[in-house]
Amino acid sequence: MIVKKALGLLTFISYFSIAPAQQVQRKVDFVNPFIGTGAAAGLPGCAFPGPTVPFGMVQLSPDTKEEIDARPCSGYDYKASTIVGFSHTHLNGTGIPDLVDVLMMPTTGEIKTNAGTEDKPGSGYRSRFSHEQETAKPGYYSVQLLDYDIKAELAATMHAGFHRYTFPEGKPWNLIIDIDHTSKKGTKVRSARIIAAQIRVIDNQTIEGYRVMTGWAKLRKVYFYARFSRPFTSTLMQEGTFTYPDKKLTTGNADIKAVVTFDKTGGREVLVKVGISAISADNAKENLDTEIKDWNFDRIVAQTEDLWEKELSKMDIEGTTEQKQIFYTCMYHAFTQPNNITDVNGDYTAGDMTIRNAGKKEIYSTFSLWDTYRAAHPLYTLTQIEKTAGFVNSMVLHHKSYGFLPIWELWGSETYCMIGNHAIPVIADAIMKDLPGIDVDEAYKAVKETSMTDHVQSPISIWEKYGYMPEDLQSQSVSITLETAYNDWCVAQLAKKLNHMDDYAYFMKRAGFYKNLYDAKTVFFRAKNSDGKWLEPFNALEYGHNGGHPFTEANAWQYLWYVPHQVKELVHLMGNEKKFGDRLDRFFTYTDTSTKVNHNASGFIGQYAHGNEPSHHVAYLYNFSDRQWKAQFYISKILNEMYSATPQCYIGNNDCGQMSAWYIFSAMGFYPVNPANSIYNIGSPVLKSAVIRLDNGRSFTVKTTNVSKANCYIQSMRLNNKPYNKSYITQADIVNGGTLEFVMGNKPSTKKLINYTEPN
Amino acid sequence: MIVKKALGLLTFISYFSIAPAQQVQRKVDFVNPFIGTGAAAGLPGCAFPGPTVPFGMVQLSPDTKEEIDARPCSGYDYKASTIVGFSHTHLNGTGIPDLVDVLMMPTTGEIKTNAGTEDKPGSGYRSRFSHEQETAKPGYYSVQLLDYDIKAELAATMHAGFHRYTFPEGKPWNLIIDIDHTSKKGTKVRSARIIAAQIRVIDNQTIEGYRVMTGWAKLRKVYFYARFSRPFTSTLMQEGTFTYPDKKLTTGNADIKAVVTFDKTGGREVLVKVGISAISADNAKENLDTEIKDWNFDRIVAQTEDLWEKELSKMDIEGTTEQKQIFYTCMYHAFTQPNNITDVNGDYTAGDMTIRNAGKKEIYSTFSLWDTYRAAHPLYTLTQIEKTAGFVNSMVLHHKSYGFLPIWELWGSETYCMIGNHAIPVIADAIMKDLPGIDVDEAYKAVKETSMTDHVQSPISIWEKYGYMPEDLQSQSVSITLETAYNDWCVAQLAKKLNHMDDYAYFMKRAGFYKNLYDAKTVFFRAKNSDGKWLEPFNALEYGHNGGHPFTEANAWQYLWYVPHQVKELVHLMGNEKKFGDRLDRFFTYTDTSTKVNHNASGFIGQYAHGNEPSHHVAYLYNFSDRQWKAQFYISKILNEMYSATPQCYIGNNDCGQMSAWYIFSAMGFYPVNPANSIYNIGSPVLKSAVIRLDNGRSFTVKTTNVSKANCYIQSMRLNNKPYNKSYITQADIVNGGTLEFVMGNKPSTKKLINYTEPN
Repeated sequence: MIVKKALGLLTFISYFSIAPAQQVQRKVDFVNPFIGTGAAAGLPGCAFPGPTVPFGMVQLSPDTKEEIDARPCSGYDYKASTIVGFSHTHLNGTGIPDLVDVLMMPTTGEIKTNAGTEDKPGSGYRSRFSHEQETAKPGYYSVQLLDYDIKAELAATMHAGFHRYTFPEGKPWNLIIDIDHTSKKGTKVRSARIIAAQIRVIDNQTIEGYRVMTGWAKLRKVYFYARFSRPFTSTLMQEGTFTYPDKKLTTGNADIKAVVTFDKTGGREVLVKVGISAISADNAKENLDTEIKDWNFDRIVAQTEDLWEKELSKMDIEGTTEQKQIFYTCMYHAFTQPNNITDVNGDYTAGDMTIRNAGKKEIYSTFSLWDTYRAAHPLYTLTQIEKTAGFVNSMVLHHKSYGFLPIWELWGSETYCMIGNHAIPVIADAIMKDLPGIDVDEAYKAVKETSMTDHVQSPISIWEKYGYMPEDLQSQSVSITLETAYNDWCVAQLAKKLNHMDDYAYFMKRAGFYKNLYDAKTVFFRAKNSDGKWLEPFNALEYGHNGGHPFTEANAWQYLWYVPHQVKELVHLMGNEKKFGDRLDRFFTYTDTSTKVNHNASGFIGQYAHGNEPSHHVAYLYNFSDRQWKAQFYISKILNEMYSATPQCYIGNNDCGQMSAWYIFSAMGFYPVNPANSIYNIGSPVLKSAVIRLDNGRSFTVKTTNVSKANCYIQSMRLNNKPYNKSYITQADIVNGGTLEFVMGNKPSTKKLINYTEPN
Repeated sequence: MIVKKALGLLTFISYFSIAPAQQVQRKVDFVNPFIGTGAAAGLPGCAFPGPTVPFGMVQLSPDTKEEIDARPCSGYDYKASTIVGFSHTHLNGTGIPDLVDVLMMPTTGEIKTNAGTEDKPGSGYRSRFSHEQETAKPGYYSVQLLDYDIKAELAATMHAGFHRYTFPEGKPWNLIIDIDHTSKKGTKVRSARIIAAQIRVIDNQTIEGYRVMTGWAKLRKVYFYARFSRPFTSTLMQEGTFTYPDKKLTTGNADIKAVVTFDKTGGREVLVKVGISAISADNAKENLDTEIKDWNFDRIVAQTEDLWEKELSKMDIEGTTEQKQIFYTCMYHAFTQPNNITDVNGDYTAGDMTIRNAGKKEIYSTFSLWDTYRAAHPLYTLTQIEKTAGFVNSMVLHHKSYGFLPIWELWGSETYCMIGNHAIPVIADAIMKDLPGIDVDEAYKAVKETSMTDHVQSPISIWEKYGYMPEDLQSQSVSITLETAYNDWCVAQLAKKLNHMDDYAYFMKRAGFYKNLYDAKTVFFRAKNSDGKWLEPFNALEYGHNGGHPFTEANAWQYLWYVPHQVKELVHLMGNEKKFGDRLDRFFTYTDTSTKVNHNASGFIGQYAHGNEPSHHVAYLYNFSDRQWKAQFYISKILNEMYSATPQCYIGNNDCGQMSAWYIFSAMGFYPVNPANSIYNIGSPVLKSAVIRLDNGRSFTVKTTNVSKANCYIQSMRLNNKPYNKSYITQADIVNGGTLEFVMGNKPSTKKLINYTEPN
């Protein structure tokens, strides 16, 4: 049965229509990699549909743009009608483009070496495609390239891509290898600039090469080693304006491509397997040969699917089919990164751009920390304990070589994107939760040094001198003040746990610095200059972007709520629970957007913008007000209205799994408002049930009664068969195993849920 | 005695005035590192005065510009009145700036973190200086920094710089470490762009750091490790617009500097020793600690001086003091590069930007081959046999990792500067001369593959298809045609020696392709398009630059003579020896420069331009005419008028020793017109005598009688006590040892010198 959903001008065809009906549905069957791949407007999702293993280095996926830009950074837009080729590395839901390394594109007939233009089918080597002849599932992607009548299928291992192309009889069979395919080139700071590149024919079934580039990541070296299942009879190479037939090598730094044309003897399939490494072509070869030893494409597909089934089976949910599709795809997206950047032999590129060896450990990168510390990393502390140790250890190693913890790290390279030092809550959370495999003293050293070292957008000495960030000395001052205060609280809690009581006192003092920017008169956090005076004029609706304004990708309304460590103090600053509730009401209902909205802000409910991270915890703050039921109302609304099993899912950039993690937690009924206090705040569950299968062999079960879109209000709760009246559960509640039961109804309950005491 | 020479507005003070009188003069005493450091106009010299060991990685020298540009690329201009600091790596006489890594500058009093402007003494941290209080000799440089009353002294080992600063009593003593000091920054292809950088305080006597950048060299990583002889009591760091006191680490990619202020207890000297590596700070530390184990500055000075004395003693000349100064400084400049890019542990960066280990071998870079293949590399085959094997092996390794031999390689990175593949004559010459330590088969493979592989500015398939480079398909077509034909001749000769007779025939055919661009009507090599028609209009005076014109940094007059492998065929093309002589006369006397001269062309005698390489062999071509004495006339004129023991020496860029090598050979009376046929053409010696002390224990002596500026004509010659009447000597004549005697006079001799038979 073809499942079609009308989505404006688009139709969305589930791959379920193509996959054979299965007797027992596996979790992977609910994952739809097309979810989040198509923006209706703004920046929803920005997922890529191609295959990857969990946390894989290689993420092989179709690109629809010839030069990847921010819309979408994943390279694939569900609205597009042509595909330019299949590249081996991708970003999932970021706001800045990069990667898309080593593009391959099969064609037939006349050889074209230019990519063509997205909007012009028939231009260049790109091909039209139709979603009706396109399939994706974890570990597998296929599409019919209509201009060439080629079936393209993709699979992936940790370090290698696997392509299977089925060519039509008749015209010559070509494969383009485009090393010049990048994000937008140019002279701006984050524009792509290829420093050096090479394609080299080793023999008539083997090609290797590399490119070294600067872009969003300051420096990336990408080496590849490609083996072909059948010989090619000719190679054509392009160097800038030159096109050379029968060329075996091309080296340069501009516009380098190769085209091979295959011997057509026997069968119509051409398989290509491509190892990738950031170190050398030799390592790329070793990566490939370790992971794909033969030409059994289907076995690799099955193997990767099994890896995903194992990951997804850490959660077992009941709900509607759409809920399952959203939920398991959210898990899939949450486990798509951070990415392993270690070769199979342990080699990796450190933060100081030296080559090092990690032995048997894996080093990870793609740390979109301003986003992911909020819920994605807390999710990993429940479902990816071993990986969490790997993430923390990678961050601590980065600190060692780079001097401070990662801010936004990509392929081992600090990009200085966004603000704050949110590796700190990630590390603090992991240690506070006693996760194994972390050198706690080393980690604390990294956390403390990062908090004591002036660095880009973290002028700590100014922080200490003024007790806030003065806007005239450090732009984005209100956002940085609020987020640094929170990070400092995390350092303090870690210091206390490790009995560094002087540090504890010191950082707790800094953790309260947010109060220095609270303006009781306007009831906002506002910017001051170094003279201690408020910055005038003040318009709480006015958005900042990423510099030049006190707020980061948000306005004063959205940052008003950023005191996750001392919510009760925030309530106190505003007066009392009623005034706090009134202010929240105003936030969720005040729809004026008379000033220009930052493009990252979307998914509005009043001033609440679910499409960007500053809002993510805010609905849960109603728990601290006199109208706790409104948390349930808004959370249910967001879950039901802003997520869907469609390409338009996510209402804003997925941001490397943060938007997914919000759904995963919230759909189960809780969410970490403070991502480092081992507490999850109760919201409004939408699933029938959910089981978290823990590494320790236990499981934690959420069950709901009478849940529906209308029945979004908690009537009563039971934890482990006992009545439960708290607005939160703890990490211990979960990891000890147990059952949390919700009875839902369509009327708010008047019972007061008890909030936790915030640790000082 | 103060020796002053009036040089226009400059005065040039020899360091001899400061050095103590010595009983026995050593060769190093004749080297004056200020020779070639000051442009009167145009681009003379572009030498740097600071210390280096022969072929050193570290070349520590003062910079006078805050951002190094082409005037001069060495960073130091003798005409300048202020010094901005001392950086650890430099280029000697190139046309494009780069390097100048890890600048250090001592100051007193108030801390300034901006460099200031060259023309504004007192601006920034730069200081005025006077040549009267400045000294340089091989292995040592010193200057009094007048604004601070600091004596700065510099020394160097292969991988480390050694600074000794003597501070005045009174004000605080500071040292600025400027990682942001580069060649001109910007968005153009070769502009500097710092990708990442760091300065890190290890303890109060140790600082390490790095910068990774793209510039002229596509990618350079420069790590440093600095030890200080006395503690610093405070550190201040600058990150862009922020200045932080007491900061221990700064990381970023823009405008990073550190300032340390020293404890003033005991003595007034501060010593700093700095290891450099392209691999890691750990390697930089190992490099430093291997080479400088204590704080004995004077011992390192003496040690490096001894290394130079050993190198310079390979030649023993008699002549005027000025001739000795020019000659030994030319040797010094010729042995300043290529540069060792291997760390003491064997690590180096290969052409494909992977990190590799060379074991006990040294890998070299800074191959300015379009220049140096002409005479510098032939000079190395006589004086640097072991290094020549190292150069050749480095080139062959580069071929292996990069795909073809280096064109203009800097720090292991191909810059694609200039045209041709002149690693080929270098390798061919070394093999034809049977130098040891070369894997001949590997080398031949590299030479042949490079000659068969299309690459930037060498579209070989077009070359083969048309028999010339058509200007509409490959710009600089005439220059590339002529130079490629020569390179092909080199491949052919190598093939013959190795008995690859098919290859020999094939490349000999290509070696004659220059004829396809010879226009008998105009008597010029001229450009054709791919339609086979001459490019019109044609103006033989019109200069090309580096693209967009058939000629490279020259005009049709200057390239008319570029058939070094088949001069007799060129004579034949022009008609006969008389017509050839007439044409040479016209070349040397036709002074019209009505079209805009390329800025590299200087040192004119008619159309002859000694300041750039295309002219370098031309005066010697008179040997093939009916008026051989004119070779002697012009060569003597160039030797006497275009070289001087002054900063203005070299009349054009030294080009990594090529201008020096021209002098060294020509002053002895011979020069390699064809740098790969083991033949040296007789010119006009200017020295009283010269001895080449060969590695094989033999020596070759040149003696002259009655030589003077007026007596530039050879009256008679004797080789090994027998009358000699050839226009050339051979490599065998030299390496077998012997004596060549010239009797000179002020009238041309009518005796005909016999030319060699050119091998087919």
